[in-house]
Amino acid sequence: MASGRPASVGIVAMEVYFPACCVKQEELEEHDGASKGKYTIGLGQDCLAFCTDLEDVISMSLTVVQSLLEKYCIAPERIGRLEVGSETVIDKSKAIKTCLMQLFEECGNGDIEGVDSTNACYGGTAALQNSLNWIESTAWDGRFALVVAADSAVYAEGAARPTGGAGAVAMLIGPDAPLVMERSFSATHMAHVYDFYKPDLASEYPVVDGKLSQTCYLQALDLCYRRYCAKFEKRQGKPFMLSEADYVVFHAPYNKLVQKSYARLVYNDFVRNPSFVEEDVSAKLQPFATLSPADSLVNRDLEKVAQQVAKKQYDSKVVPSTLLPKELGNMYCASLYAGLATLLHTKTEALHGKRVLMFSYGSGLASSLFSFQVHQGQPPFSVSEIVQKMSISEKLNTRIIVDPKAFVTTMHLMEMRYGAKDFVPVSSHSTLRPGTFYLTEVDALYRRRYSRKISTTKPEIISSNGTNGVQFN
Amino acid sequence: MASGRPASVGIVAMEVYFPACCVKQEELEEHDGASKGKYTIGLGQDCLAFCTDLEDVISMSLTVVQSLLEKYCIAPERIGRLEVGSETVIDKSKAIKTCLMQLFEECGNGDIEGVDSTNACYGGTAALQNSLNWIESTAWDGRFALVVAADSAVYAEGAARPTGGAGAVAMLIGPDAPLVMERSFSATHMAHVYDFYKPDLASEYPVVDGKLSQTCYLQALDLCYRRYCAKFEKRQGKPFMLSEADYVVFHAPYNKLVQKSYARLVYNDFVRNPSFVEEDVSAKLQPFATLSPADSLVNRDLEKVAQQVAKKQYDSKVVPSTLLPKELGNMYCASLYAGLATLLHTKTEALHGKRVLMFSYGSGLASSLFSFQVHQGQPPFSVSEIVQKMSISEKLNTRIIVDPKAFVTTMHLMEMRYGAKDFVPVSSHSTLRPGTFYLTEVDALYRRRYSRKISTTKPEIISSNGTNGVQFN
Repeated sequence: MASGRPASVGIVAMEVYFPACCVKQEELEEHDGASKGKYTIGLGQDCLAFCTDLEDVISMSLTVVQSLLEKYCIAPERIGRLEVGSETVIDKSKAIKTCLMQLFEECGNGDIEGVDSTNACYGGTAALQNSLNWIESTAWDGRFALVVAADSAVYAEGAARPTGGAGAVAMLIGPDAPLVMERSFSATHMAHVYDFYKPDLASEYPVVDGKLSQTCYLQALDLCYRRYCAKFEKRQGKPFMLSEADYVVFHAPYNKLVQKSYARLVYNDFVRNPSFVEEDVSAKLQPFATLSPADSLVNRDLEKVAQQVAKKQYDSKVVPSTLLPKELGNMYCASLYAGLATLLHTKTEALHGKRVLMFSYGSGLASSLFSFQVHQGQPPFSVSEIVQKMSISEKLNTRIIVDPKAFVTTMHLMEMRYGAKDFVPVSSHSTLRPGTFYLTEVDALYRRRYSRKISTTKPEIISSNGTNGVQFN
Repeated sequence: MASGRPASVGIVAMEVYFPACCVKQEELEEHDGASKGKYTIGLGQDCLAFCTDLEDVISMSLTVVQSLLEKYCIAPERIGRLEVGSETVIDKSKAIKTCLMQLFEECGNGDIEGVDSTNACYGGTAALQNSLNWIESTAWDGRFALVVAADSAVYAEGAARPTGGAGAVAMLIGPDAPLVMERSFSATHMAHVYDFYKPDLASEYPVVDGKLSQTCYLQALDLCYRRYCAKFEKRQGKPFMLSEADYVVFHAPYNKLVQKSYARLVYNDFVRNPSFVEEDVSAKLQPFATLSPADSLVNRDLEKVAQQVAKKQYDSKVVPSTLLPKELGNMYCASLYAGLATLLHTKTEALHGKRVLMFSYGSGLASSLFSFQVHQGQPPFSVSEIVQKMSISEKLNTRIIVDPKAFVTTMHLMEMRYGAKDFVPVSSHSTLRPGTFYLTEVDALYRRRYSRKISTTKPEIISSNGTNGVQFN
């Protein structure tokens, strides 16, 4: 092992998975008797992905990890760390990570550090930071780390339900990465607050104070941004302003909050120094220059004006990362990284040499603002290869649009399944894409067994590692 | 920030907390109608610590963190990372870490990375590894990390109940430490197994297959030991054998398993090379030389003989770490680190220059074998200061022995409290030592509020940071 730290540590490969089933927000708002545009314009969402009783956070994690290993031809022995960020609790003690160890059994690799990181939608970011740190530490043994961010976000019937979603992102972490994390600028804000939490242990649904949570999110963004700017200036010897960031990806509970968030950063730049924003922007924000930070967070006029003046930048810097979060809904821990995957998918080669700013927020609360520099990478670990392998368009195009009634029926079924034992899933296998892991049984002792739908795309790889047709316990 | 890694990273300070209430195993076995010696000799346990409805994993974590900061005069601003390892789930989304942020509010330090790490009894070890990695990474900003390992271990009425316990350990992590982790020898084994898990979300009690769990523990120990030995030999150019370790601390579900575990390591040395053990030991183990690893795990004769031949070494290398685990019971994530605290307490100055081997096991499963070298440290961060500040004897001597009937009544109360809302604890405050945080209320929205019992030992520090008499939400 080298005594120095490895260079350019970051994300070297990615894979995205989401269930094929989705409901259209336009149809859902009509079904729910909500006013037209409430979900599509008010929330800014297009579709909502969801799991039937064949899938859960474990099966999605199995699918996305196995798919990444296969697509990039990574032998399982080459993984030295694997950790999961999730808030979808199927078991309060046994980590999702331990279930993923089934994928490494055949090759005999049990020497894989890392467990699950937990705090609402922030767990994936904690896992990512931990993995980056491991590679830069003296504990590193030269192998890759693998980070999984996965969640199934479901809400009780009512106003919050359309903000659900489901998905999983796997990220391979190593040196010489195409997405190099700028470690020393990373800024964090943590606090104690009850904005969204899951204290009703028998229910999958959270307790949510939506208004408080939005304020907490924007306040955390303010604080992280100030700290990021301070760290940047200290290291770079020049002030940070939004012009230094080419793209900004936000944790996306719903798209409308992402729109507000970018506007909030513009307002932050203006307050820090009016010369940090364009003259016409500065002029329009002037009436709000003397608001206290607390007042500025609840001022509706400011919110509107800031979004107006930020619109052009929002379109160029933020919209390229919004497709998956708008099409799938909130994937909790996976949301931010599905946004990053979307950005790669949308901009690909144009990203070379650019800085991507990322804002992670988990209620409770934990938040970080950090950035990547996009590099060339080492084949097969380049942005264009990642984009090709993620095949986001193909995955979106093969979705099954479910009508709202069937969606509600599935939600009822899932309520009965949550925390249940001794059952066999009843949903149709036709909703599973080839290569997808699915639940086959939960026995009388709550032990879960999974299988994998035969892949038609890469049979040679599947059969060689024995995962096809083998039952996973 | 220096471009190189800081030196001698490890545990610079520790604090231990456990509830004052305990039940004697001798009295419990009589009360339960168990055969005499079943809990005391069969399990090897002396007492069992438990929480009343005034305490929980959050209050214990608040207590141990605040106590560490006060005793070592660490200003809260000096903490840059704080993470918790626990499997006691009060909320499925909101991390215990976020509740601890209340202790950092007054000084305005929200810039503290880290959340909760989850996998059965292994979470504390994951948190420790993560913190060590952070300090060795380019993300490190020169501040301390703080690791909390805390759990309340309770079981349904029956055979497993006497293996409960409760406690919390806080560890300050930094460079120039008295306990320097030997990072590059650290060995891990992870696998998918249902030996102990918590799938019944509405209940605090686990589902346990005790026999399977013991086999998994010993098998994981075998695998970690082989990997540790291989890494040691690769780096040091000589084989590792138990004579290289001065002390061995084990995760202790109950003491009897610790006895078996050390014997298992001796058997491992014998199988690797008979010359690694003393001649008389080798002669006595010879009849078991050709057993397969699987058979050796279930061979009762081997178990007995190995414990006999290992007895002398067990007494000198393992017994010095067994006091707290025997007196408090299984503290899940805190168990291994309470063992380490006990070793410091028992051996103190004699530890200088010694190697301490540590085995961490969490069902499901996750396990690691790693080691510390004991150094002089930098005042106030020396072993003797840590021992003085932990004041383990004083804490043990001020316990309240509760009779088994009252213990069972408390367990019934705690069953009703688990996952409940809208209540005020009813237990007597007389069971709380000065300086202890306790639950004052769970409101109709499940929000938990804590207060702190006035400290009579360090009033000047308490009043200066305003935590005394202040209500914690």
